[in-house]
Amino acid sequence: MEVVNKSLSEQILEILRERITGFKLKPGTRINIDELAREFKVSKTPVRDALNKLIEKNLVEVNPRVGYYVKNLTKKEIEEICELRRVLETYALRKANFNNSDKEKLKALMQKIDQAERVYKKKGDRHLFDETDRELHGMIIQKSENRYLKKVFLQLFDLINLLQHTHQRVMSSIEEHRKLIRAILDGNYEDAQKILIDHLSKVEAGSIEVLTLMREKPLSSSASLKKVKAAK
Amino acid sequence: MEVVNKSLSEQILEILRERITGFKLKPGTRINIDELAREFKVSKTPVRDALNKLIEKNLVEVNPRVGYYVKNLTKKEIEEICELRRVLETYALRKANFNNSDKEKLKALMQKIDQAERVYKKKGDRHLFDETDRELHGMIIQKSENRYLKKVFLQLFDLINLLQHTHQRVMSSIEEHRKLIRAILDGNYEDAQKILIDHLSKVEAGSIEVLTLMREKPLSSSASLKKVKAAK
Repeated sequence: MEVVNKSLSEQILEILRERITGFKLKPGTRINIDELAREFKVSKTPVRDALNKLIEKNLVEVNPRVGYYVKNLTKKEIEEICELRRVLETYALRKANFNNSDKEKLKALMQKIDQAERVYKKKGDRHLFDETDRELHGMIIQKSENRYLKKVFLQLFDLINLLQHTHQRVMSSIEEHRKLIRAILDGNYEDAQKILIDHLSKVEAGSIEVLTLMREKPLSSSASLKKVKAAK
Repeated sequence: MEVVNKSLSEQILEILRERITGFKLKPGTRINIDELAREFKVSKTPVRDALNKLIEKNLVEVNPRVGYYVKNLTKKEIEEICELRRVLETYALRKANFNNSDKEKLKALMQKIDQAERVYKKKGDRHLFDETDRELHGMIIQKSENRYLKKVFLQLFDLINLLQHTHQRVMSSIEEHRKLIRAILDGNYEDAQKILIDHLSKVEAGSIEVLTLMREKPLSSSASLKKVKAAK
């Protein structure tokens, strides 16, 4: 029974994690355990186990008398996450040594970014953009060649993903990514550093803007999220 | 039963963690599950659970066919741990804003360091020195005022503790700590940065020296450890 339970709670954890970091379950939304147990056709125990693991990952918070909620990050928390990300990522870039095989990968990524831009312009679908985003930043972290730094970054990754979905800076991010890749390909590492810091600061500002608006007017449906986006 | 088991394995985890980070169980030592189960008067399950959690914490490694061992860090791993530590700690110091209450704490710490020096000189007991070490570096990390950075540092802490016990730089570390505190108290933050970087690099070099020697001649008794120390 223990093994089955564990695997159930892990599956539920994965589904909820994707809904939260993918911004389908919005920050501040109350999580109804009974409803989830019915949806997944399981008892409440594995749902509760999954939620407790999500608390450790900072994606869910609990109000002891009231219940579980999707984590609603404060401005200060967003700043702290982005600050640590900036420290790790700029360090990795400063240390990075891009060889020819890395440069080939970056050129291929540049083409994928062009494609992501076309898809986003045509259908408003940011899926491919998100993929290129993860690939570029992941590659920079890889270049740190420090397994402990990579591990720490991976732990932050859910939160970074969540923040990424909050901001609507797709077109500007695409341009910033292109500038960053061009600087690396040209060997202008000092420029690359500046472009990266500037890009990460803008991502931070974008997240704070959206999430602060959401904190002021807690939302539970995607209809009201659209209002927030429109208000921007 | 599940609750009792959990608490048993957590207790065993704590005991083994202390033995490893306190350098009583030396790197490379084989861990005998049967022996530990007899010592703690428990079944093998909670011992194995504790060891598996210690693997996650990078303090134990497993060789699937042979068994569990106290983690024997490679030179590259020590460099990576120390590098990440340096990135986090120098960032925290750069950002730190020491107010009057912090300065009072640093003055009190300076007196404790004097005391630690006397105890170490008289009895060779480094317990008090280790305490002042943790207090000073912990205070710098606190001043980052970033809960995610603190969390990451805390995760590294067992490994930092382990490395700290490997090097025999007590007297030099005491002097370096004094210089660092003096620079902060004098408001020479640029000097403080340089002193911190220099200190952490020396700690790294000291750990690499001892642990590399130990890797070359795997040890299991403290008698043979003394030989390594003498060889230095």
